[in-house]
Order: sequence, then structure tokens, then C-alpha cells
Amino acid sequence: MSSSVTPAPLQPVTIAFDVMGSDLGPEEIIRGVAQLTLDTPHINALLVGDGAVIDAALADIRHNAERVSVQHAPEVVTMDEKPAAALDAKPNASVAVAARLVAEGEAEALVSAGNTGACVLSCARYFKLLPGVKRAALATVYPTQAVRGLKGDPFSLILDVGATVDASADDLVAFAVMGSAYARIISKNPAPSVALLSNGTEAQKGPPRVVEAHAKLQQLAGIKFVGNVEGVDIPKGTADVVVCDGFVGNVCLKMLEGVHDTVIELASYAYKEKLLWRAGLAMLSSGFERIKQVTDWEQYGGAPVLGFDRMFIKAHGRSRARAIGNAGKVAAKAVSHQLAAEIQKALPK
Amino acid sequence: MSSSVTPAPLQPVTIAFDVMGSDLGPEEIIRGVAQLTLDTPHINALLVGDGAVIDAALADIRHNAERVSVQHAPEVVTMDEKPAAALDAKPNASVAVAARLVAEGEAEALVSAGNTGACVLSCARYFKLLPGVKRAALATVYPTQAVRGLKGDPFSLILDVGATVDASADDLVAFAVMGSAYARIISKNPAPSVALLSNGTEAQKGPPRVVEAHAKLQQLAGIKFVGNVEGVDIPKGTADVVVCDGFVGNVCLKMLEGVHDTVIELASYAYKEKLLWRAGLAMLSSGFERIKQVTDWEQYGGAPVLGFDRMFIKAHGRSRARAIGNAGKVAAKAVSHQLAAEIQKALPK
Repeated sequence: MSSSVTPAPLQPVTIAFDVMGSDLGPEEIIRGVAQLTLDTPHINALLVGDGAVIDAALADIRHNAERVSVQHAPEVVTMDEKPAAALDAKPNASVAVAARLVAEGEAEALVSAGNTGACVLSCARYFKLLPGVKRAALATVYPTQAVRGLKGDPFSLILDVGATVDASADDLVAFAVMGSAYARIISKNPAPSVALLSNGTEAQKGPPRVVEAHAKLQQLAGIKFVGNVEGVDIPKGTADVVVCDGFVGNVCLKMLEGVHDTVIELASYAYKEKLLWRAGLAMLSSGFERIKQVTDWEQYGGAPVLGFDRMFIKAHGRSRARAIGNAGKVAAKAVSHQLAAEIQKALPK
Repeated sequence: MSSSVTPAPLQPVTIAFDVMGSDLGPEEIIRGVAQLTLDTPHINALLVGDGAVIDAALADIRHNAERVSVQHAPEVVTMDEKPAAALDAKPNASVAVAARLVAEGEAEALVSAGNTGACVLSCARYFKLLPGVKRAALATVYPTQAVRGLKGDPFSLILDVGATVDASADDLVAFAVMGSAYARIISKNPAPSVALLSNGTEAQKGPPRVVEAHAKLQQLAGIKFVGNVEGVDIPKGTADVVVCDGFVGNVCLKMLEGVHDTVIELASYAYKEKLLWRAGLAMLSSGFERIKQVTDWEQYGGAPVLGFDRMFIKAHGRSRARAIGNAGKVAAKAVSHQLAAEIQKALPK
């Protein structure tokens, strides 16, 4: 008598995990993956990194062995290496091996907590850009005043934040399409509002590439383009998806990271004579520490590299096991919901 | 027996004040100018705006009549008008008349609290760009964690913040020279550190125009170029002068304006259940209100438009009398210390 149906079981998805390169060491990644294989029956894990280290860790950590495989990779790109030089010198670095395996179909998406530049470059070397996409984007969620979507997320998505520093109008249009599809699928926001970042809300504001992208987005069906937003709208969260080139996005994101410390410091600098304010600051310090954690990518699953035929999720270098598991879940969700196909469908013809 | 000398009396300087266009009305501007004529023996004021309003206000406000003159201008550009259309339709708007008088030598610098776009455009129409300067820049001071200069200013200068949205490498180099000269003269910082804003500290980071500007600045004598800074360095105040194009600068500045409200809102959103934090926030609220005042341009004298043969200081639209007076002092200081000549001397040959 009920019209409810049991959801079809999810198709199995294999996610490759670059086990090396994390600030917290390979065991933290392996712990996250091990728990994931116990929690999510549809995700298989391919662990890529130092085989002996992986085997030793797996021997100590409860996991579902049926859904874990291991690929030895003898080299590692460290956090402080220059991406191109490091990948040239170490063709068998774990991130490169993992990206090749994904490109060859041994897994369907990749998660890494390693060197961001080396991650993006590995995608560029081994994955294919989607037809109609000329440049990839690194996207990230950041905390906002406004909440959005079915889950009331206090986060917006901003892209690009560093993959493509010099984006053309067509690149910005593609970023808008990618960001919209990602927010739709991952944040369960059925019609995410998408805005271009500019120096004014009027259509003719901004450098030529932004003005041209604005005109093209107004003509584009399938995304909810709400026009330009300004810098002040970034923290407010006026739009669900903020589109900009990787240069501006990187500057904004890093400013956001630095700014809350500074507000506190400035307050204490300017008013250290006033005891009431000092007491207020002291009371808040653990609160701000907590905000910092929330604004970390920990809880949200990482930053996607968008525009390629394969999915890559960049987890924060300090990601704990649970965050690695979440990144794996986000990657699997993107694969299950065919993010790449969704993006391609929405691109201008 | 002392080696101290009496400083030579300052040469008289005439500053034109656009009396119209302020959010607080013409009387607030006139009050600021009136006080200035009482306080500073070397500054003459030329008031430009509705003659009847100016005369009525002057009749009520104590001032030094010997050092005040009035030019009637029958039209006004309001805050919400489009700059180009408004100036085309109103050739006798106060800001345009004032700029023409400065261009003709009736005054040596201009102060306005009106529509920013109309101010910058009036400069472009009536002033001459300095030889070697292709595009002007709007600069502004903003609060930082670090302090600097002889006065321990907790402010850095950032430029351009909106006059030139699409700056070339040569424009960025000129902005660096202008910002350095302004900080040297106005902030009494003998060797201000100048940085390029980019998405990484390495010389090769950023879009081509930034990479090229970096290389040129490294070769340029006469300014203290400290390389690239990132977004996180803006609130920290790592450099005394931050150079970027008007698009990025505008986004950053507006983000800075919006962000402190958001930190507070986010804290109360995320932790409203926690009484201790709530109390801390309440105790701080007047402190943050005070920070907002400090971060306003009020105390600092306004935002200079740099690159022209004449000086223009844009005062905040909500500037009170004291801020208008300060803007006049800054303009006079720039004239007395020959800012335009200093800039020209330091430009690449």
C-alpha cells in the first residue's frame, strides 16, 4: 500500500588513494580507507604507495580485505617540492602511479592529501579534459554567513582557486558549469545559484574576460546564473557557487584563511587597554579555534579538481582518517552520479 | 649652542573641495574646511558647489575668510548615478568644475567625498597622466596586524582598488612606484616595502602580467621591492605597499570590508548554544564597532588617485568634518612634497 521503493543498491565504485604525501603519514590515510571499507559496501579501495608500509598498516587495522587492493609505488612527492620537477624526477611517485591507474580504468577516481600542485599536474598529465573544456579548475568549499541546500550547509563553493591562473571567458563559463554540477550532486542543492566574481554587480563591470563570460552565461540554459557578485559577497555567501580565475580565487581563499586571526589580533592590538574587550576575546578564543576547524576541509571531503574525464579529490594535507573517508565518499558520489557526464551535458555547444 | 633650526614656513597651497555629493550633505564638508582654515596657516580652500548653500553655511560657521574662496557649480553627480553618463549630462557638476579649476591652476589638488567613479573619471578627463604612466590607480589604506613607519601605523596601502581593472605589467610597475612615493611622503615611512600580490611567493607565480612585472621590479632602483605576497599577507600587513590590478584589489578590499561582520555572525551561528562564547561576543561587540570605525578612512584622510599631474583625494562618502579636514591636509602634504615629481623621478626610464 506504500508507494515507497527500496533504493537500488549502489553500483560498486573503486577509488584509488594516494597513501603517501599526507602531513600525518600514510597510516592516517590507511586508517581512513580501512574504516570506509567497513562502512560503505559499494566502495572498493586501491591503495597506492609504499607496499611494505601499507601491508604493515593493514595488518594492524581492521578493514574489509575483500574490498582493498594495493599497488606499490616506490617514490613520493613531498609537500615542499616543485610539482613539475618532482614529477619529472619521480615518474613512479605514488600520486603519478595512482593517476595512471585511474586513467587506465583500474579505479574510477583518485583521492590524495599530498602536494596540491603535483596532484593537479598529475591530473593534467594522465587524465583527459572533457570535450569543450580547455582548462581545469580546483574548487573548494568555504564557510559563509548564509546557509543553503537541503542540508542547510553554511558553505559556498568557489572555483578556480589556483589551477588556471589566467582564465579566458570560455574557461570561466566552463567553471560555472562545473561548479553548478558539483554543487547539485555533492551538496544536494537542486538549483545552485552561480555568480561571477567582479568589481561591481553590473553586467559591464570587470575586465573584458569577465564581461564576456557574463554575457555568455546569461544565454546559457541549465544553470541558475545570478549575475556578478562582489568581494563583500564572498563571506556573506550570496551565491552558492562563485566563479573566478585561479589567480583571484587563490588570493581570496588565502585572504579568508588569514583574516580571522587578524581580526582577533587587531582587536587585541587596538584595545589592549580595555579589560572588558580582553575578557571577551579570551572567552572567544576556543570558539574561534573551533571555527578554524570548521573552515578546514576536514568535514566536507576535500577540494575537487574539475574538468577532467576522471574525478580527483584533493584532501587537506592535515586530513585525519575521517576526512580521508569523507573524501572517498565524495569521490564515489561524483562517480555514481556521473559528474563528468553532467558537466559535459551542460557545457555550451 | 643648539643645532636645531626653525623649519621654513610651508609654502601656501590651495586645495579645491567638491562640496556636493557627500552622504552627510554639504554642511559637513564646509565645517571640515572651515576648521582647516583656522588650524593650518598654509592651506587655502576653494569651495566648489551650490553657491547659495555654501554662502549660507559659511555665514554660520567660524572660518578664516581670507583663505576661503567659492566657485558656484549648479549641478551634482549623486552616489547612485553611472559616472560617464552623469558627467556627460552634467558638465557643470561640482566635481567636474572643481577638476577643471585644478587643471587650470586655480587650485593644486582636489578633495571630494562624492561618487568614486565620477571622481576618477573627472581626473581622467581634466588632468594629465604623468609621462611614463599609462593608467591611473586608486589607492587606499587598510588596517593590518603589523605596524610600520615612524608613526607605528597599523595600516598598509593597497593599489589599484578599482581605477584600472585590467592592468599590464608596465601599469603594475608604475603602481608600485606611485604607492612607494605616496607611503614615503604621507606615512613618513622612509623606505616602504613594496610587494606584488600573487598566488605564490615565487617569482614565476601568477598570470603573465604579474610575472613580467615581478621581473621588471627586481631591476628597478629606488624602490624597496620585496617580491610577491599572497592573500594571507594582506590582513597580516607583510608589506607596506601591496600592488595589484584594480579588479583584484577591488575584490580584496570589499572582502575585507565584509569579513569582520561575517566572523562574528558565523561565530554566533555555529555556537549559539554555548553561553560562554555568546558572552564573549557580546562583550566584544562595541570593540568590533570601534574597529569598524578605525578601518574606515575617517582618520587617515582618504584614498588618493595616483598617476596624474594633479592630486586627487577621494574621501569616504560618510566622512565627517574632521576626515574632510584630514583629506585636505593629506592633499596639501602631497603637493608640498611634490608627490607627482617624486613619482616621475622613480618611474623606469
